[in-house]
Formats: sequence, C-alpha cells, structure tokens
Amino acid sequence: MRHYSIALIPGDGIGVDVIREGKKVLDTLCELDGGISIEYKHFDWSCEYYLKHGKMMPDDGLDILKDFDSIYLGAVGYPGVPDHVSLWGLLLPIRRQFQQYINIRPVKLLRGIQSPLANRGVDDLNFTVIRENNEGEYSSIGGRMYEGTDMDMAIQNSVFTRYGTERVLKYAFDLANQGTEKFLTAATKSNGINHTMPFWDEYVRKINMDYPEVKTDIVHIDALSSFFVTKPDVFDVVVASNLFGDILTDLGAAIVGGMGIAPSANINPEKKFPSMFEPVHGSAPDIAGKGIANPTAAIWCASMMLDHFGESNLSAIMMDSLQDVLEEGIVTPDLGGKATTEEFGEEVCKKMRSKF
Amino acid sequence: MRHYSIALIPGDGIGVDVIREGKKVLDTLCELDGGISIEYKHFDWSCEYYLKHGKMMPDDGLDILKDFDSIYLGAVGYPGVPDHVSLWGLLLPIRRQFQQYINIRPVKLLRGIQSPLANRGVDDLNFTVIRENNEGEYSSIGGRMYEGTDMDMAIQNSVFTRYGTERVLKYAFDLANQGTEKFLTAATKSNGINHTMPFWDEYVRKINMDYPEVKTDIVHIDALSSFFVTKPDVFDVVVASNLFGDILTDLGAAIVGGMGIAPSANINPEKKFPSMFEPVHGSAPDIAGKGIANPTAAIWCASMMLDHFGESNLSAIMMDSLQDVLEEGIVTPDLGGKATTEEFGEEVCKKMRSKF
Ligand SMILES: CC(C)[C@H](C(=O)O)[C@@H](O)C(=O)O
Ligand SMILES: CC(C)[C@H](C(=O)O)[C@@H](O)C(=O)O
Repeated sequence: MRHYSIALIPGDGIGVDVIREGKKVLDTLCELDGGISIEYKHFDWSCEYYLKHGKMMPDDGLDILKDFDSIYLGAVGYPGVPDHVSLWGLLLPIRRQFQQYINIRPVKLLRGIQSPLANRGVDDLNFTVIRENNEGEYSSIGGRMYEGTDMDMAIQNSVFTRYGTERVLKYAFDLANQGTEKFLTAATKSNGINHTMPFWDEYVRKINMDYPEVKTDIVHIDALSSFFVTKPDVFDVVVASNLFGDILTDLGAAIVGGMGIAPSANINPEKKFPSMFEPVHGSAPDIAGKGIANPTAAIWCASMMLDHFGESNLSAIMMDSLQDVLEEGIVTPDLGGKATTEEFGEEVCKKMRSKF
Repeated sequence: MRHYSIALIPGDGIGVDVIREGKKVLDTLCELDGGISIEYKHFDWSCEYYLKHGKMMPDDGLDILKDFDSIYLGAVGYPGVPDHVSLWGLLLPIRRQFQQYINIRPVKLLRGIQSPLANRGVDDLNFTVIRENNEGEYSSIGGRMYEGTDMDMAIQNSVFTRYGTERVLKYAFDLANQGTEKFLTAATKSNGINHTMPFWDEYVRKINMDYPEVKTDIVHIDALSSFFVTKPDVFDVVVASNLFGDILTDLGAAIVGGMGIAPSANINPEKKFPSMFEPVHGSAPDIAGKGIANPTAAIWCASMMLDHFGESNLSAIMMDSLQDVLEEGIVTPDLGGKATTEEFGEEVCKKMRSKF
C-alpha cells in the first residue's frame, strides 16, 4: 500500500462545498485502484474560526501541519474579516514557512470548456506558469512616513535573492527541459524597474547555461500579458516573480475559462515540508452551501496533488474523467448547466469507475 | 487663428514612417479647418543619434522641448542600443521632468477592428485606463548587495507619495465624474503588497468622498487583469499605479486589436509643460522604411493631441475618418490588407476632406 496523509482545510464559503467533492473523487479513486490509502485530518481553520478565536489557526498551527504529505485547502475569506487577516494569518505563512517556493498553475483549456478568446481550442491553450511564491514583491518590508501631513508617503521593498531566484528558475528550466518544446519564457520589467529586474534577467541567462537545449525568451510583463491574449499558443513554460506570476496566472485562468476552474499548487519540491493545493477561486460566501459551486478547480487540485505524490497514472485518470464529464455538458450553473456540486462530483466518480 | 507648436521626435525604425503619416493627417485637417495653424520643429533624437553622439538627446534637450505645446514621438529602440539607454535617456526623463503624471490609454475597439475576444464588439470594449506615470514602482531607488557571492541580492523600492497619488486619482475621478457611467475601478494589490497598496486604497476612498456620485470599485490587479478578458464591458474609467497601469494598458491594447493600433498620451494636465503623444508600438526595425507599418496608432495619437489642445471637434473628425477607412478594409498588411503606410494615411485624408 502507498500511504499519504492530507490535512484538509476547507476554510470558508464554497471552500467547504468543493473540497467535499474533491475528497469524494479522491476516495473513489483510491478505492478503485486498491493500492493506495489516504489518511485525512480535518481542520476548521477559517474566518469563522477567527471570529471565535481571534486568529485564523492555533499558534502551533504550522507545527501541526508540518508532517502531513500535503494540505488540501478550499478557500478563505468572509465579509467582515479583512483580507490581510485571512491571508497573512493562514495562507501566506503556510506558503513561506513550508518553503512552498513554487506555485504551479497550468494554463490548459480542458475539453468541454470554452475559452473567451475567439477561435482558440485545446491545442492552442496548453502551457504552465511557474510563479515564485516566497519573496520578490511580497516582501512585507516597508512602511509609511509623515502620515496625516501633505508629505504622507509609503515605501515597499521588493527583495530578490540569489537563493530565491535560482531555485525557482532551476525548477522552471527543469520542467521546460523535460518537455518536448523546451521553451521557457521569463517575465521581466527590466526596462522600467532597474534594480531587481535586471538582477532577475541576469540569473535567467546564467541558469540557462546549464540548460543549453532550452530556448529562452525574456519578455516584459506588459507585452507578455498582452501575448497571453493575442498569441497564447506560443508558450510552453512561463516563469515569473511573485507579483508577475500572480497576475499572469489569473490572466491564464481567464483565457482557459475563468477562476471557477483554475487550480493551483504551492510546492515544496524537496518534500521537506507539505505542499498545498488550492483552487484559485475565493470563498464566494453568497453562493455557499447552495449546491451550485463548481468543484472543477478542487478536483483538478486533487489530481495535481496525486502528481506531486508521484501517482501520475491516477492523476491522469482523474483529469480524463473530469474532462469527459465537462465535455458531456453535465456542468454546474456557472458553466451553463444544471448539475449540483454534488452531482458533478458523482459524475466524475462514475466516469472513473468506467475506466477500471 | 489658433496656434500650436509641436516638437516632432520620430525616433527610430517605423517611428519615422508612422509619424510622417500622422503629421500629414494633421496638416490636412488644419488646412480643411482653416482656423488652426501648427508649427513643427523636427528633432532627430533617437538611437541613431545616440550612436553618433553618445546620448539620446543633447544635454539641454529638455530645455529645448519645454516651451512646445506638445511632443509627438514615434518610437525609440534599436538593436545594439540597450533598452535602458533609449528609455532612461529620452522617454522616461521627458515623462518625469515635464510632470506628465497622467498616462491615458483608451481601451476602445475601433470600427473595423476585430477583437481577439470572442463575441465582443465596439459596444463592449470602450473604456479608459489612467496610469500614474511618474512614481510608484518605477522609482529607480534600490540597489544590489553581495554581488558575486551566494548572498547576492537586489532590492527595489516602490515609492507612493500623497502628492503623486492624489493628483492621479483626482484626474481619474474627474474623468469618471464627467461621463455618464460615473464608475471608477482602482487597481490594487493590498492583499499581498502590504504597505504601498493599502496606502493607495486609502487615498482612493478619501478622494472618492469629493466625488460622491462616482461609484468606485477597488480590485486586485490579478483579478482585474482577468476581468479585462472575461468582462471588459463593465469598465468605464480604470485608474492604476505606474506598473499596474503599464500592464493593464498593454492588456487593454491586446483586447482591442493589438499594439499596432494602441495610442498613448503622457499628459501634464496643468499645461505647465508639454504633453507627449506616442504610439504604444515599438520601432520594429525589421519592417522600417518598407511602407508596411500601420500608422493607425500614430494617427490616433494625433487626435488625442488635438483633444488635449481643446480641439475636440477636429479630434472627432479625425477619429471618425480613421474608423471609416478601417471599416472599409483599406488596411495595412498587419490587419490583413494591402495598403501601404502612405496609402493608408492618404485614405484618412480623403475621408476627412469628404467631411468638410
Ligand atoms: C518602455 C517602458 C519603460 C515603458 C513603460 O513601462 O512605461 C513602456 O512599456 C510604456 O508603457 O510606455
Ligand atoms: C490572496 C493573495 C494574497 C494571493 C496572492 O496574491 O498570492 C492570491 O491572489 C493567489 O494568487 O493565491
């Protein structure tokens, strides 16, 4: 038996609805496979938890999580709890403490999903964005001065280290090198941001020397964003700093059908710490518990988790089944269908059963 | 006679080709109108100039420019001259010294142009992005440390001042307030960038109090980028910091037909200094002088310049004529047509003549 442990943090709102289906699909697959067992532990850390306890998770939260193989997170956020509380109290500390320095977001149009781009199909939209997930523009270093006067001002530092830059670039070059296209696009803005971005470019060129087969293009973030719309078919692997990656991945999600579908994986490649898998969509409290949330992103996350475990066959079966269901049009209201959250999950399970 | 003076800086590559047509269209319009006269002075400042003189413009370049009503710039950039030379030696000093703190980019689908977004027409794509153009993430403050060692790192400061923030927000609120939709979207990232962005948000809320009729939405840049693709029809005026505005405007250009078409205006609203009008596209040295560059952006820029002069009637006639020509399909090769740069300019002149 291959054994894995997962910390479940459904969080708030529809996070709870979609993680339930994701878990169901995972469980069904394990049962079908027979050779894999998953142990779950459920945590109610969320904004609701915050309203009761004054914090998003217990003080020893990270310590509790640290020995799991992975964290499966729904969404956090609730009206009345400021963003910076829910994020800096849970999401961002997990990413940083567990050295989840890689954020992977596939920009892949699933079968059955319509792109908002004219005349673009599954063959045009299939690449991966690797986002630096620990440093850069999200340094939290900076401050404010002269508040309350005419001279009021704020400064924020972007911090790029060799350590942080090399490791994300190596990961991205590795990924590009393993593929058939072997083409890496690195986002920059060295024409306008004249310290950190030339530094980044320099390391792109340096690491490239260790991957002579990978063709590399360094593209300014403004142009690159526009190319996601005008020529998304040219990309293979895209690597970007924390902020640029944040922007590109949401944009990537948009061109393949929107946030409701997009998964993300926060990876500690060394597996020294747990990695975290979370849908990109938020907690959408207005539709929570109504059975209409789309669990596609959560299921896709589960399949990325299997990939991370090295279970690529099972991961492929799950994605295949998911796309079969989408293609048959048995979809939730956001995609124009009538299926409930639960029915959709059930259909994916049914499809998987048919493949064993 | 209304009199205006324009400094022409065609710059490099196709900058020369398109400014020639833009000037021709302007001249024709003045002739037709009869009540307006424009005096031009031509400057050969460019990368070519740099290769001869070791600088992009003379040391007293800004002093020479300062009394013109406006600057009409083609494009700068040439292989062999690094970006930071051509930009920091010409474009960025002009923007800053002349307090061109407003960068206006219309995200408007012209009649006759196809959007890459499925099922989106001229009614869906019609809003304006106001970008802060002087400070923020382009501070040029920062540096590098421990170079050549494992601890090598770079830091860049984003600097947001009350002065710089309030003036761009006021401009944007004013613009929104003058329109019928009265809807302002402000780009932020205060959930991840925790000093400068909450500062920005605070001023958005504060200035909003002076414009009670303007409905305001503060949206994170990642989500906002995706909304440019998934629901571009909701926007009216969008205001953003220097970097976020840079990204949003290129993205905006992409959804309305690409960089070949997009104009930009760098405005000093007080008219204490000249404003600068420049196509967003680059110098494209590979196609320079071949008669195939698309002068649409340059002509659009000329019409924005007329607007800035207060000649809104003439500006409207120019834009109308431009769109008539585009709609008739008499377009340059980049838009699938056979017209040369010159023929296209000539057609626009012909259309204008028919309107007098
Ligand atoms: C060339 C570059 C410095 C510039 C910018 O980022 O401001 C350009 O992208 C623009 O938008 O005008
Ligand atoms: C919520 C926010 C801090 C976060 C980020 O910017 O990293 C989110 O946008 C994401 O992409 O996961």
